[in-house]
Amino acid sequence: MRQQSSLIVNCRVATLTGPDYGLLDDAAIAVTADGILWTGPRTDIPAAVAAFPRHDLGGRLVTPALIDCHTHIVHGGNRAGEFEMRLKGASYEEVARAGGGIVSTVRATREATEEDLVASALPRVDALIAEGVSVIEIKSGYGLDLETELRMLRAARRIGGLRPVTVRTTFLGAHATPADHKGREDAYIDDVCIPALRAAHEQGLVDAVDGFCEGIAFDTVQIARVFDVALELGLPLKLHAEQLSNLGGAALAARYGALSADHLEYLDEDGVKAMADAGTVAVILPGAYYTLRETKAPPIDLFRARGVPMAVATDMNPGSSPMCSILLAMNMACTLFRMTPEEALLGTTRYAARALGLADRGTITPGSRADLAVWNVDHPAELAYRIGFNPLHQRIIGGRI
Amino acid sequence: MRQQSSLIVNCRVATLTGPDYGLLDDAAIAVTADGILWTGPRTDIPAAVAAFPRHDLGGRLVTPALIDCHTHIVHGGNRAGEFEMRLKGASYEEVARAGGGIVSTVRATREATEEDLVASALPRVDALIAEGVSVIEIKSGYGLDLETELRMLRAARRIGGLRPVTVRTTFLGAHATPADHKGREDAYIDDVCIPALRAAHEQGLVDAVDGFCEGIAFDTVQIARVFDVALELGLPLKLHAEQLSNLGGAALAARYGALSADHLEYLDEDGVKAMADAGTVAVILPGAYYTLRETKAPPIDLFRARGVPMAVATDMNPGSSPMCSILLAMNMACTLFRMTPEEALLGTTRYAARALGLADRGTITPGSRADLAVWNVDHPAELAYRIGFNPLHQRIIGGRI
Ligand SMILES: [Zn+2]
Ligand SMILES: [Zn+2]
Repeated sequence: MRQQSSLIVNCRVATLTGPDYGLLDDAAIAVTADGILWTGPRTDIPAAVAAFPRHDLGGRLVTPALIDCHTHIVHGGNRAGEFEMRLKGASYEEVARAGGGIVSTVRATREATEEDLVASALPRVDALIAEGVSVIEIKSGYGLDLETELRMLRAARRIGGLRPVTVRTTFLGAHATPADHKGREDAYIDDVCIPALRAAHEQGLVDAVDGFCEGIAFDTVQIARVFDVALELGLPLKLHAEQLSNLGGAALAARYGALSADHLEYLDEDGVKAMADAGTVAVILPGAYYTLRETKAPPIDLFRARGVPMAVATDMNPGSSPMCSILLAMNMACTLFRMTPEEALLGTTRYAARALGLADRGTITPGSRADLAVWNVDHPAELAYRIGFNPLHQRIIGGRI
Repeated sequence: MRQQSSLIVNCRVATLTGPDYGLLDDAAIAVTADGILWTGPRTDIPAAVAAFPRHDLGGRLVTPALIDCHTHIVHGGNRAGEFEMRLKGASYEEVARAGGGIVSTVRATREATEEDLVASALPRVDALIAEGVSVIEIKSGYGLDLETELRMLRAARRIGGLRPVTVRTTFLGAHATPADHKGREDAYIDDVCIPALRAAHEQGLVDAVDGFCEGIAFDTVQIARVFDVALELGLPLKLHAEQLSNLGGAALAARYGALSADHLEYLDEDGVKAMADAGTVAVILPGAYYTLRETKAPPIDLFRARGVPMAVATDMNPGSSPMCSILLAMNMACTLFRMTPEEALLGTTRYAARALGLADRGTITPGSRADLAVWNVDHPAELAYRIGFNPLHQRIIGGRI
């Protein structure tokens, strides 16, 4: 273990544990495979770590490694053809008649083997890792049958073994109703979704449970049935809520003590209060807002006023957010939703960890995992300021340099 | 020369010389250092090139290498602090009082050595090259004094020597009025801008001449004085026009036979007609529209109806478009302005070349330079569809594989 200990020196550290990014200038960080031992100004290095092998960062900025807490990065096919059809003037109906929409992703995902799903996801995963990401949440929800939902989750688990990244899986059987259950949403929940959740949990494939609460998906009563099973199984909850309308999904999520409610463009003040009281994280997903050309932003000011922690994620998915850049999600959170660069960075570190129920990362503080990102920038505001530019110098994962 | 000849096989080729991307399936391309000799279906390979060493692309897509025809990529400093101030609620006045705005970039650029300018631009240039870019246009315009304008152009020229990329320089002395000439725009044009243009031209630093025609910059009469000198020197013209209001800049550019007019959000139908008649390219810059949160899109439908060729570029600059991704510019052109993926790709190849007056590139056709981009995608629509993802497999520049 001793040879894995390092003292990272000559750096600026955004600890994200206090105001103004918790910035420490001319700082040092003592790390081991077990986590961060100490961080503080160079002048205060404790004797216990002073003899560790030193790693000089040349004045660079260090932040916690980034966390993408909401993705659908495992899926079959892509929707470029549909994107092009729409831009050539086709209506949603014409796209649907041509086999487009989520139906086409469900078809492609069902046709894909586990190997196919892993192979097609890896370049996207690698794009996130290249931006300093150490944790990726991956949802199921394009199978909508027991077998494919489990295959998606197995593919997600395998990705965590193939790459130096922590994968957190989320069961999203309640994402849409498959064609063979159209109009029989309750039957789908009872006969497919809940049995698939139980089976996936039995096989150790589920870290959290999610649903899509929307007019085009499921109502709060149907979601509550899934949540009841999740609670019975001891699984934490998340919910796609108030993206296109206000059905009271976030309040439901809060009532169930969910880790997060996600999207939230149409959330009202009562919903914000419910989230604040429950400590539920608001996951902000500007990529979908951008792609769908929405005009109603989530109530950032209310989240701020009520102290609701905000996370920011890519929502990487083939339809409404084919985005593989967490840094771009941060820029969009600022540009489109007027979050500050500090809120955007907290949203992809500290509060993203909270949205996943991970207590051991997301800040640079003794006891946290030594998952760090080193950047070729002077100030952390630059991370959200640039658009389509990756200033990562290196990732340090589990204290390994 | 023979050993530099290659026959690229097993690929899909988007020639961009005909409808539907000029797509050729199961095609081949014969290249030498001097250019493209032949392209066509595998079954038609001429005897003269059949014996060239073969390079198998495994079914990948080949397009012309991409061209970023409008950037301010050479500049001092960055504006992340100002970005953060604004998002924390500061007004434009407060930002200005804190030394922000273009003034801060002018100050940082004047303080930078040529080496500083090159060193700070290279990571941005490398980000574009990594996306398959083979030509970058680079403007001056943050010096606003003779010495610094020339230094910017020398830095741009040096970048072309340091990287396998063609740099086209554009003199943009008429970008803004420096503090010491505030309110004396005419004096600045006569005493600084035009002498700097003549000096830069004498030193072989100028490939084209540009200006910023806007209420906050220069009017058409002032721009015309610069254009007259450019014509006298035999230099082609470009113009930032109709970005924030309609001053008739594009019509002026058309009257002078300019290569391009750029931005164009506020252009009216008469201006579109003038551009169509003159063959002036419309350079579409969605990054600035996105960053400034503009709401008026350029008249894409009118450009289409009148047959005005549209280019797409990053406008990479530290204030209104800190964007280093040409693929993202393509996605924004589609998502925000409803251009089609094919128009977006034509805009970063064929019509970007035309916006720079480069007749020898931008399509895959015999006689063109063998500057190619090879992509890990099935269909060219995927290039504009994804957001913050780079599917480049390799660049082939000057036939070198
Ligand atoms: Zn989602
Ligand atoms: Zn510009």
